[in-house]
Amino acid sequence: MIPLDELVSEALHLKSSPFQDRDLGEFKTLGLIFLNPSLRTRMSTQKAAANLGMHVMVLNMDKDGWALETRDGIVMDGSTVEHMREAAAVMGEYCDILGLRSFPGLKDRDEDYSESFYRKFAEYAGVPMVNLESATRHPLQSLTDLITIKEHWQEIGKLKAGFALGKNSPKPKVVLTWAPHIKVLPQAVPNSFAEWMREAQRQGLVDFSIANPAGYDLSTEFTDEIEVFHDLETAIAGADFISVKNWSSFENYGAMPPVDGNWLLDQQHLASTNDAKILHCLPVRRDLELSSSILESANSLVIREASNRVWAAQVVLKHILQQLS
Amino acid sequence: MIPLDELVSEALHLKSSPFQDRDLGEFKTLGLIFLNPSLRTRMSTQKAAANLGMHVMVLNMDKDGWALETRDGIVMDGSTVEHMREAAAVMGEYCDILGLRSFPGLKDRDEDYSESFYRKFAEYAGVPMVNLESATRHPLQSLTDLITIKEHWQEIGKLKAGFALGKNSPKPKVVLTWAPHIKVLPQAVPNSFAEWMREAQRQGLVDFSIANPAGYDLSTEFTDEIEVFHDLETAIAGADFISVKNWSSFENYGAMPPVDGNWLLDQQHLASTNDAKILHCLPVRRDLELSSSILESANSLVIREASNRVWAAQVVLKHILQQLS
Amino acid sequence: MIPLDELVSEALHLKSSPFQDRDLGEFKTLGLIFLNPSLRTRMSTQKAAANLGMHVMVLNMDKDGWALETRDGIVMDGSTVEHMREAAAVMGEYCDILGLRSFPGLKDRDEDYSESFYRKFAEYAGVPMVNLESATRHPLQSLTDLITIKEHWQEIGKLKAGFALGKNSPKPKVVLTWAPHIKVLPQAVPNSFAEWMREAQRQGLVDFSIANPAGYDLSTEFTDEIEVFHDLETAIAGADFISVKNWSSFENYGAMPPVDGNWLLDQQHLASTNDAKILHCLPVRRDLELSSSILESANSLVIREASNRVWAAQVVLKHILQQLS
Repeated sequence: MIPLDELVSEALHLKSSPFQDRDLGEFKTLGLIFLNPSLRTRMSTQKAAANLGMHVMVLNMDKDGWALETRDGIVMDGSTVEHMREAAAVMGEYCDILGLRSFPGLKDRDEDYSESFYRKFAEYAGVPMVNLESATRHPLQSLTDLITIKEHWQEIGKLKAGFALGKNSPKPKVVLTWAPHIKVLPQAVPNSFAEWMREAQRQGLVDFSIANPAGYDLSTEFTDEIEVFHDLETAIAGADFISVKNWSSFENYGAMPPVDGNWLLDQQHLASTNDAKILHCLPVRRDLELSSSILESANSLVIREASNRVWAAQVVLKHILQQLS
Repeated sequence: MIPLDELVSEALHLKSSPFQDRDLGEFKTLGLIFLNPSLRTRMSTQKAAANLGMHVMVLNMDKDGWALETRDGIVMDGSTVEHMREAAAVMGEYCDILGLRSFPGLKDRDEDYSESFYRKFAEYAGVPMVNLESATRHPLQSLTDLITIKEHWQEIGKLKAGFALGKNSPKPKVVLTWAPHIKVLPQAVPNSFAEWMREAQRQGLVDFSIANPAGYDLSTEFTDEIEVFHDLETAIAGADFISVKNWSSFENYGAMPPVDGNWLLDQQHLASTNDAKILHCLPVRRDLELSSSILESANSLVIREASNRVWAAQVVLKHILQQLS
Repeated sequence: MIPLDELVSEALHLKSSPFQDRDLGEFKTLGLIFLNPSLRTRMSTQKAAANLGMHVMVLNMDKDGWALETRDGIVMDGSTVEHMREAAAVMGEYCDILGLRSFPGLKDRDEDYSESFYRKFAEYAGVPMVNLESATRHPLQSLTDLITIKEHWQEIGKLKAGFALGKNSPKPKVVLTWAPHIKVLPQAVPNSFAEWMREAQRQGLVDFSIANPAGYDLSTEFTDEIEVFHDLETAIAGADFISVKNWSSFENYGAMPPVDGNWLLDQQHLASTNDAKILHCLPVRRDLELSSSILESANSLVIREASNRVWAAQVVLKHILQQLS
């Protein structure tokens, strides 16, 4: 694993100098393939690519009429019109880099957690891929979150200039907390957040823990080594950053088991924290997932966090371009 | 209010020299957000921005799955997936300028005429906005119309070179006329046309009047000072330019009260005019709103008018860019 | 008709030097109008235009809400919202070149084969047009196929460097073969393939024949001079290239009359060929239209063929741009 603090520092440098690598992307094409809706990922990645001088083509495949087949060994006499083997290979011919968004079905846990859709697409495409949110991961979001944490920690003077997170400065306490919702949502965002923050903890950058109701534990693939609380108040005591997100059950896959207690984070909860700053990947349903009073307070970093999606995408695309050239 | 003739002259200058300001838009991003369909506005604004060297991102939010909440103080446990507070703020982070199209509901007049959707979006976005047609206004269309009037007046030699409309030259008589339709349409286009032509009249550029059936008077917010006829023939006598458009009732909001007489403009009507040239914002339903014989005659300026949308958008974007830099 | 081998050679030269004509397209706008879904045509034409330095605007008109009227002399009080006369003329104002995709209705053969939709659009638009697949033709696909045939023939050493196909080298035997499907498909792709290969045969580049079941003969407009077999095995004996495609009946227009025998091309069929390479325009339904074992074998050129769509589009756009400037 690459040193995360270096990657974050490079992203923040790009933020201060967005057009420095324009020559790197010239004559290179990025294809963005969306099987599901997207606002932030779409716009921020488009912008990042343009900053790098790339040509971008966006393709929405979320409409009826272009259902991709993924299974092998069947006669395609049903509703799928093209096999991913051909579709991905062709897109790989047109594009130097491909980004793909494809949500999980949330019916078959093994299928979703095999990431077979994303993996097969990448294999057939044969070009470097950028994950724009797959069945079980949303890495550009997690990188954004780490960028936003470091940026804020610097701005309020808790991180000395030129130092990595956690070095010669107080180490931020970061907590991922579950939030209520009315719809069945994937675990991709919290999985990636846990995976990246666990790695950040391993590298000595942050202290990380998770709070979710019983029945909502994430896969230990992403959370082992990490303390998981089934109680919101205990978990967030002394927190510097709280990342809020709903997800459906991993254990009882795709279910929404009943929840005890109040998991809607509001201003009162912040009293026991270290004036915690609040992250959310957006879109957020106000006063269902997160209180509007927090969203409108100085504690909210959610707009900054969304804004930083550009720099997360740009640093990743830059690294890929450097390997291509 | 800025001198309209100067703005129009500048737009016509851009038409003759489209790429002169390429450096102005370099490194700037325009986001075009469409909550409703668009052909001319979409393509002309995209082209104007490209002429200015800008990067353009187009986002259609007219599909199911991305309904924006605008109300405050409610729990978002319904069909809206994101509050405009967050969505607009995020788009404002990605874009230096935002264009927004959002049609009115035509149910609640106070709501529509408050322009609260557009105003809130602009407030939350925090960047300069371009109105791509809002609940009650379509200003780029009105500017285009004035550009087309001046351009034509020059071409047929009625306006001396270098002079403003109405100066040392015959002043054009401009009439806005209501036309039939089968659907309930907003008042945005005629409101803006009236607002802009009233200002043009104040500045001595044109003589302006309106003809519509009883029951279809526009809001006096846009039409006071302007003579309104309830009779088509009387209104268009001696007209040099007739702008044709359907709209639903403002008084009996969103209704289509029955209409007496023939309001479908055809060649016979033109006999009493000063060989009037015909404007229509398009799309136009032939022989329902406007006779096909007029549309195919030399009296029609509708294609020229649509073409000039590029220069209206470009001059507005140019002014915004100049203020940004 | 232009010398096909020269056009193909120029396309292959562009493939080796994609960005040589960047100045040619600068300040020029290409509009791509899709009334039907598109993956390869959309992406390859976008990329070709970008390679040429053009500005590209893509417009999907395949959604409800923008149905175009094409009939004259009717009152537009139904479901169509704009007449093609205005819509095409306006797009012609915004774009230097327009590409249009519009599939046939497959109900009225005379209507479809008149190509009235495409022809009217081109007439009203008043700018050079690129056919992105019309009711009865898909010429960019056929050009791609010829490019792929020559490229492969060179690569395997059967075509001497610097020579045209069929000159001082073995002449490839090319066969178009019908394939099964479950949906009613247009004849556009096979019509164009037949039209182009017939011309290639006239110019001495290839030997061309067709195999389809009885009841599936294409219009003789495209196939006269060409031998048509109603038997797959006989037709493909000794073939060097087989282009596989389903189409519905021309004779019993839009029908799918029952078919005798096995028309699903698989590895066994290849035994009697000259190690034939397989073409298909894609998307392909595996093991319905074409066996997956062929698609995954070295005999398949389908991905290469799709990749070459870029160079077919680019050489055509280049020629149009040269005539514009």
